[in-house]
Amino acid sequence: MQAFSQGMRVAGYTLGGASKELVDCGLVEAATLEELVAKLAAPRAILLYIPAGSGVDEVIEQLAGVLDPGDVIVDGGNSYWGDSIRRAERLGKRRLYFVDAGTSGGVDGARHGACFMVGGEQAAIERVEPILRGLAIPGGYVHAGPPGAGHFTKLVHNGIEFGMLQAIGEGVALLQAYPEQLPVADVLRCWRHGSVIRSWLVDLMEEGYRAHGGLADVPSHVDDTGEVNWLVGDALRLEVPVPVIAQATMQLLVSRDQRMPWARAIAIMRHGFGGHPFGPAPAIAHKRHVSRVGHP
Amino acid sequence: MQAFSQGMRVAGYTLGGASKELVDCGLVEAATLEELVAKLAAPRAILLYIPAGSGVDEVIEQLAGVLDPGDVIVDGGNSYWGDSIRRAERLGKRRLYFVDAGTSGGVDGARHGACFMVGGEQAAIERVEPILRGLAIPGGYVHAGPPGAGHFTKLVHNGIEFGMLQAIGEGVALLQAYPEQLPVADVLRCWRHGSVIRSWLVDLMEEGYRAHGGLADVPSHVDDTGEVNWLVGDALRLEVPVPVIAQATMQLLVSRDQRMPWARAIAIMRHGFGGHPFGPAPAIAHKRHVSRVGHP
Repeated sequence: MQAFSQGMRVAGYTLGGASKELVDCGLVEAATLEELVAKLAAPRAILLYIPAGSGVDEVIEQLAGVLDPGDVIVDGGNSYWGDSIRRAERLGKRRLYFVDAGTSGGVDGARHGACFMVGGEQAAIERVEPILRGLAIPGGYVHAGPPGAGHFTKLVHNGIEFGMLQAIGEGVALLQAYPEQLPVADVLRCWRHGSVIRSWLVDLMEEGYRAHGGLADVPSHVDDTGEVNWLVGDALRLEVPVPVIAQATMQLLVSRDQRMPWARAIAIMRHGFGGHPFGPAPAIAHKRHVSRVGHP
Repeated sequence: MQAFSQGMRVAGYTLGGASKELVDCGLVEAATLEELVAKLAAPRAILLYIPAGSGVDEVIEQLAGVLDPGDVIVDGGNSYWGDSIRRAERLGKRRLYFVDAGTSGGVDGARHGACFMVGGEQAAIERVEPILRGLAIPGGYVHAGPPGAGHFTKLVHNGIEFGMLQAIGEGVALLQAYPEQLPVADVLRCWRHGSVIRSWLVDLMEEGYRAHGGLADVPSHVDDTGEVNWLVGDALRLEVPVPVIAQATMQLLVSRDQRMPWARAIAIMRHGFGGHPFGPAPAIAHKRHVSRVGHP
């Protein structure tokens, strides 16, 4: 959307065909990658938005077969930065440019201006910077470094995001657990104005909590696309301690862990050494007391 | 400052005397708490901003001796919410109102409008809400519930804040550890515009990183006033898992842990079972390789 409002000419190819909305906005549709390349004048800039993995290599390979020297392939997806370094090297040998453009901002950003963290050689960057700056919200563009730096920077962004999500999620759980019922949505709204934690995620939390009327109807299973797992691996290789990002990543796994084998294993051992009964203990009056009146 | 710009009449008492700036703005200074009370017409609203602990009890006790029935004491500090419940009960028996007003926004908030999370009985709230709304940034006010709910809500806010701080801190460490030097401040600035993690803390991080020219000259010891420790205790009593808030709290202790006895203990055991040498291992070529080119 942002591209059209900037007056850019856009040709596009996607599996299953483009949406009517995009065609109505002026998208030049292509039925194949070859047709896409034919509909663009050289030097071309091709933006990929496809899920990370071997699909990216396949599309790049197909494109490399039909593009001309000096054309640029921009990977706007969440590819692993190590792959981006290797792809840039491979394409460079064929005189094609490669730019990794980590993209943040979600659906809203796609419509009204995104945030781009871009990696690539200077010559490649110069070709695509005007386009990406046009698609970005003002200020939401950085040339982060050589090939790979864009996707690495985006990956770090996502790690921070996971930590923030988990911290806010835990906070909402605490608000709900207070002995008196609190107006959780109103508290979240208050936090949006002047608090230290004001942020887009707190904005979304308030709006979503209100729209869903709380949490009860929201499934607790949280899926993700697995990229932050890479970051935890990178942190181990780079020897950077990231306890909160790693913990937040693990908590996503916890959200999917219906059977909790580790808890069953603990129960077996506690039963073994202390005769502790399986399952919940009977309610203890003392416990209820301390949860009603706080003790520091 | 906000109070004066709202045209409020303010009398104040502080140890060591008020700043010239406040007096110039129109502060009516009092040399004792008795004088402070004498300079205000009943029904009075007294805002306390003093560090949590027995000092709050002492000042409340002194004030209770000179205030009139129907006066309100507002604790704007970071007192423990359990203490606030007990103080409200104790003052209620003496026909004095108590309101716990968790306050966020830092120095900037104090000057240009803060964020208040308020706990108290309806009658007490009605007395102070116009004042606190006047001191707040628009929207930055919530009546969170009965006495204690304001300080609890603020405590949860601070727990979320710790998680966010740690996540952002880890992200900055990762950016600095990338094999190529990245323009960290520029990346942070980009994140302020359109990214999912845009937030006041990322704003502060960019400004501070730029002002300090990086992290090298900033001491790594992080102190705090210990309130979030209470929240971790509350979470245990309420049986709410808060792994990231707890971990972020522990990381502050790590930042102060120069001697790392736990690491020395690990070294002893590893030396014992595997003959592993003490101290850093010699550099390994393989390690340097994997940190230069990422592997998912």
